[in-house]
Amino acid sequence: MKILILGGDGYLGWPTAMFFSNRGYDVTVVDNYFRRNACTELDVGMLYPVPTLVERAKIWHELTGNEIKVVIGDLTDPEVMRSLFTGIVEYSWALDRGFAGIPETVIHYAEQPSAPYSMINYKYANITIKNNLLVTNNLMFALRDFSRDTHVIHIGTMGEYGTPNIDIEEGWLEIEHKGRKDKFLFPRQASSLYHTTKVMDTDLMWFGVRMWGLGITDLMQGPVYGMETKDSVIDKQLRTLFNYDEIFGTILNRFIVQAVVDYPLTVYGKGGQTRGYLNINDTLQCIHMAEKTPAQKGELRIFNQIMETFSANDLADKVQRVGKKMGYDVKINHIENPRKEAEEHYYNPTYQGLIEIGVEPNYLTDEVLAGMLQVAEEYKSNIRKDVIFKGIKW
Amino acid sequence: MKILILGGDGYLGWPTAMFFSNRGYDVTVVDNYFRRNACTELDVGMLYPVPTLVERAKIWHELTGNEIKVVIGDLTDPEVMRSLFTGIVEYSWALDRGFAGIPETVIHYAEQPSAPYSMINYKYANITIKNNLLVTNNLMFALRDFSRDTHVIHIGTMGEYGTPNIDIEEGWLEIEHKGRKDKFLFPRQASSLYHTTKVMDTDLMWFGVRMWGLGITDLMQGPVYGMETKDSVIDKQLRTLFNYDEIFGTILNRFIVQAVVDYPLTVYGKGGQTRGYLNINDTLQCIHMAEKTPAQKGELRIFNQIMETFSANDLADKVQRVGKKMGYDVKINHIENPRKEAEEHYYNPTYQGLIEIGVEPNYLTDEVLAGMLQVAEEYKSNIRKDVIFKGIKW
Repeated sequence: MKILILGGDGYLGWPTAMFFSNRGYDVTVVDNYFRRNACTELDVGMLYPVPTLVERAKIWHELTGNEIKVVIGDLTDPEVMRSLFTGIVEYSWALDRGFAGIPETVIHYAEQPSAPYSMINYKYANITIKNNLLVTNNLMFALRDFSRDTHVIHIGTMGEYGTPNIDIEEGWLEIEHKGRKDKFLFPRQASSLYHTTKVMDTDLMWFGVRMWGLGITDLMQGPVYGMETKDSVIDKQLRTLFNYDEIFGTILNRFIVQAVVDYPLTVYGKGGQTRGYLNINDTLQCIHMAEKTPAQKGELRIFNQIMETFSANDLADKVQRVGKKMGYDVKINHIENPRKEAEEHYYNPTYQGLIEIGVEPNYLTDEVLAGMLQVAEEYKSNIRKDVIFKGIKW
Repeated sequence: MKILILGGDGYLGWPTAMFFSNRGYDVTVVDNYFRRNACTELDVGMLYPVPTLVERAKIWHELTGNEIKVVIGDLTDPEVMRSLFTGIVEYSWALDRGFAGIPETVIHYAEQPSAPYSMINYKYANITIKNNLLVTNNLMFALRDFSRDTHVIHIGTMGEYGTPNIDIEEGWLEIEHKGRKDKFLFPRQASSLYHTTKVMDTDLMWFGVRMWGLGITDLMQGPVYGMETKDSVIDKQLRTLFNYDEIFGTILNRFIVQAVVDYPLTVYGKGGQTRGYLNINDTLQCIHMAEKTPAQKGELRIFNQIMETFSANDLADKVQRVGKKMGYDVKINHIENPRKEAEEHYYNPTYQGLIEIGVEPNYLTDEVLAGMLQVAEEYKSNIRKDVIFKGIKW
């Protein structure tokens, strides 16, 4: 089975590549180092240095004997995207430089993934729109033209739904109005420009499904936490990139690092903002189960990819409690909210679909938190306090 | 009152400029000739030659004494958009080259407006996404940064709603689900990539309204017909550009031209596709009434801008009947539908809001049709039969 991973250098992309490579799949990864370059440009810290994608593929091959083919290229260029299906692709690294073949599954992570990045100013807003929509559209047209049977697994975000006053279903809602019925995509209204581009991604994919009979799974994911996956433990150089700053660091990853360097946990406003979360190992499980049970042709299958919900206050309290047990004097600081978002709101999402196809949740236990604190402690000398909070306003 | 018209060279943009100029407003128009250039590139016909925007502004000034300031520039470049609010704009033509001032109203027509264009292939799809979303986003961020009090009037499309099995409301729908309620944008799922970018425009504007308190009116317009407006009759050189081809010619404009040159009316499939239509003079009325009763700050006001609904068969029958009275032997040809769309469907849109703020509909009478046939007859020798249908498939 051939798997193509778009955005293979990212926080989720690289662990996904190792996961499938370890299980006998032929894996190709594509990336243009957008995330790394943005981190350099914006001067945000990474917890530890991470080898390039080509270096990682070589290390992976030395340690496991498995090949992960690497393409360094910009998928907003349609010719780069199309080369992955026509076979005229040039690999930046591969043992066998011959075309891997048309993939049975494409996993699409190739997005600018940060809400604050998209809100820095109009220039970053435009970069986010161009990157996210052109990559997704190029994928839709490549499949239309070359491979309508390929299953796409896309990472959406729970942020597409916002915080509505009704229960959040898994992607779809049947609506009765004036005595007539129809089924629609669940109403979506996002609270950052980044999240809005993910709403638009879903629109582009729903268009591809309706027009050309594509089969797509869209996974509405919550913020992910964790560094280590079961495949990365064999060598520290295989750990995925890890940000702890305001722009690319997700909330729990950020709190963990703040705890270790005695930087009060920055809770935005009242801290009642409730979201669904999951462990990075569960992201891999979800992708795997979605791959094993593909969407039908002509189906846009949507799952809500979260395992449990917490408020920002819940997360801060957990990190404080576990951190104190480990000897850190963790403080919590409610700062003025730089974002426009509800700080207290109704939030009741459904998330049964992935459990039903076989995912077994890993919950946020004290042991998990302690493990993350240990890794952060290991790299404590790398942590730059000055990049943790910059105050990008909405 | 200062009005800024984005897309001022287009089918609706130029008539709108004359309309407000005639009524004492200070009008500035911006365009990059996207539409004209696309017509040249794709070799589609125009019914008659149209002077450049600068030439038209000069003719307008000679005949009326009024100034319409002209900026030739690409609004996907955020610096061009921002210059219209900061005052560093350079006019391509103006009597007074000093800055016109921050506009009280922006009328946003600056979009790639054709469904078939967006579906030619992946390149035109990407052009449509980039043009439409970047212009709208640049406008949102310019208003955020320089002028949150300016009222935006945007032309959306009824095509955003598609053809749902429930009644179409004016933009919004209150949904009750499991005993709780919330109000959302009416469900939207469009049947071309162009129409999908308009769904996304609405999302970007709704984001600007929620985040920065902007006041926006989004007019969900149906296909427009007509050549002549009350302001253009003073000189033929002031007539708006008129396409009769498959790509840029809307259905009724196309049928009129086909009737005159004995080209059987091309009805796609069964012809039961029902849409709402309006006269170009009513577009001007609607814009005017929206301008006189602006949306509140923090309000996205949506109206359905149609005056009556017809199926494709209805339109063909009307043109055939009126054409025959005028001596044309009009035939109707049901060709295989190149599009993916329902050819028979439920369609019941509400369109009361614009009537309530004072618009008085002009209906599609036999006289209106006869007037259009006369103009087409006048330019019969320009009509190229080879460009009427090219068969762009979805």
